[in-house]
Amino acid sequence: MDPIKVIEIKKSVFADNDQDAALLRKELKGKGVYLLNLMSSPGSGKTTTLIKTIGLLKDSLRIAVMEADIDSDVDAVKIREATGIRSIQLHTGGMCHLDAEMTRQGLDNVDMENLDLVILENVGNLVCPAEFDTGAVCNAMILSVPEGDDKPLKYPLMFSVCDMVVINKMDVLPYFDFDLDKCKKYIRLRNPKAQVIPVCAKTGEGVDVFAAWLLEQVKSWKQQ
Amino acid sequence: MDPIKVIEIKKSVFADNDQDAALLRKELKGKGVYLLNLMSSPGSGKTTTLIKTIGLLKDSLRIAVMEADIDSDVDAVKIREATGIRSIQLHTGGMCHLDAEMTRQGLDNVDMENLDLVILENVGNLVCPAEFDTGAVCNAMILSVPEGDDKPLKYPLMFSVCDMVVINKMDVLPYFDFDLDKCKKYIRLRNPKAQVIPVCAKTGEGVDVFAAWLLEQVKSWKQQ
Repeated sequence: MDPIKVIEIKKSVFADNDQDAALLRKELKGKGVYLLNLMSSPGSGKTTTLIKTIGLLKDSLRIAVMEADIDSDVDAVKIREATGIRSIQLHTGGMCHLDAEMTRQGLDNVDMENLDLVILENVGNLVCPAEFDTGAVCNAMILSVPEGDDKPLKYPLMFSVCDMVVINKMDVLPYFDFDLDKCKKYIRLRNPKAQVIPVCAKTGEGVDVFAAWLLEQVKSWKQQ
Repeated sequence: MDPIKVIEIKKSVFADNDQDAALLRKELKGKGVYLLNLMSSPGSGKTTTLIKTIGLLKDSLRIAVMEADIDSDVDAVKIREATGIRSIQLHTGGMCHLDAEMTRQGLDNVDMENLDLVILENVGNLVCPAEFDTGAVCNAMILSVPEGDDKPLKYPLMFSVCDMVVINKMDVLPYFDFDLDKCKKYIRLRNPKAQVIPVCAKTGEGVDVFAAWLLEQVKSWKQQ
């Protein structure tokens, strides 16, 4: 296989990120490409969840993944090896988030004309990525059971900007003090319309529910 | 009990954080107060580890804790209720890290004249806090087993600036693909002098090793 394409992202020079994000969203709409911005803490299982999700969707949608990381290309390699789909690595050069212009630098390196869905796996961070509109059609996040059910109280903005919260690592629930009902209550305090889907990315349990939601999102958005 | 003191941290106006951090360190030295900056991802167990550590050290050292969070005071309350020691909450107002001036704003609210050790529990974030010298005498971090053994590859700066890495949640090792030897190797790639201590904060196992290290650190620093 070819080596993974690694894009060294440059810091944005644009002052108005919101304007740039709106412009990018309009452009994506024109091309019929749905961009999902997936966020989480380090190690909550974004890559594993994506691999299982793509496995379920790749016959229905043309998908590419942009993996944002400060360093390394382990995730982009993993995604491509496991799913065979196009996957590029965005190196943020130490930056803790992606904004719309940085996202565009990534999109310039995927073949948007022949795609239905691009998934941006943002930098593992519950703080900064929430502050920047990437231009994505939708923000989703993963919270894993070992992180604790109190995270919506401590990282309010992240939960406010995400309309989909996947709760991962449900298989280890017996070993942690994690109250799913309490967590759902905290999430809805931050975002009353947020949907919550419990999954276990390792075994694949529940990922079909997330995949079905995403497929429906992409289809209805293309028809709008 | 009195309500927890919550300090709303203001953004720094100082341009030279390194200079400010060096100044703060000098001042701490003059007062004989050791400042430990403890960092990690959200939910890796900083607060639980601290509670167990303080339980082992509070008869030997006069300790205060500063809990930095974007919102809420759950951690400061937990620390005080569990240990009885002085604990204040620093609200960063959405900011993803603390710098030296922000740390000083916290220290102005603890009684430094009557303390040996102040522990700063930084914002849960593996990216930004690593970029700012807080003025602490030492940086330590916690990586928990569920986050994965590849984190030193993905968050290099954090591991480079920490001389102590506590590996927490060792009790759930059987349920995760986490290779401790591989993780130690990756950590030492980033920082050859880093010490690694595996613990389980929930049961307390291994925390005595971390507490003994910290006690020795504080004592030898006071004697220098």
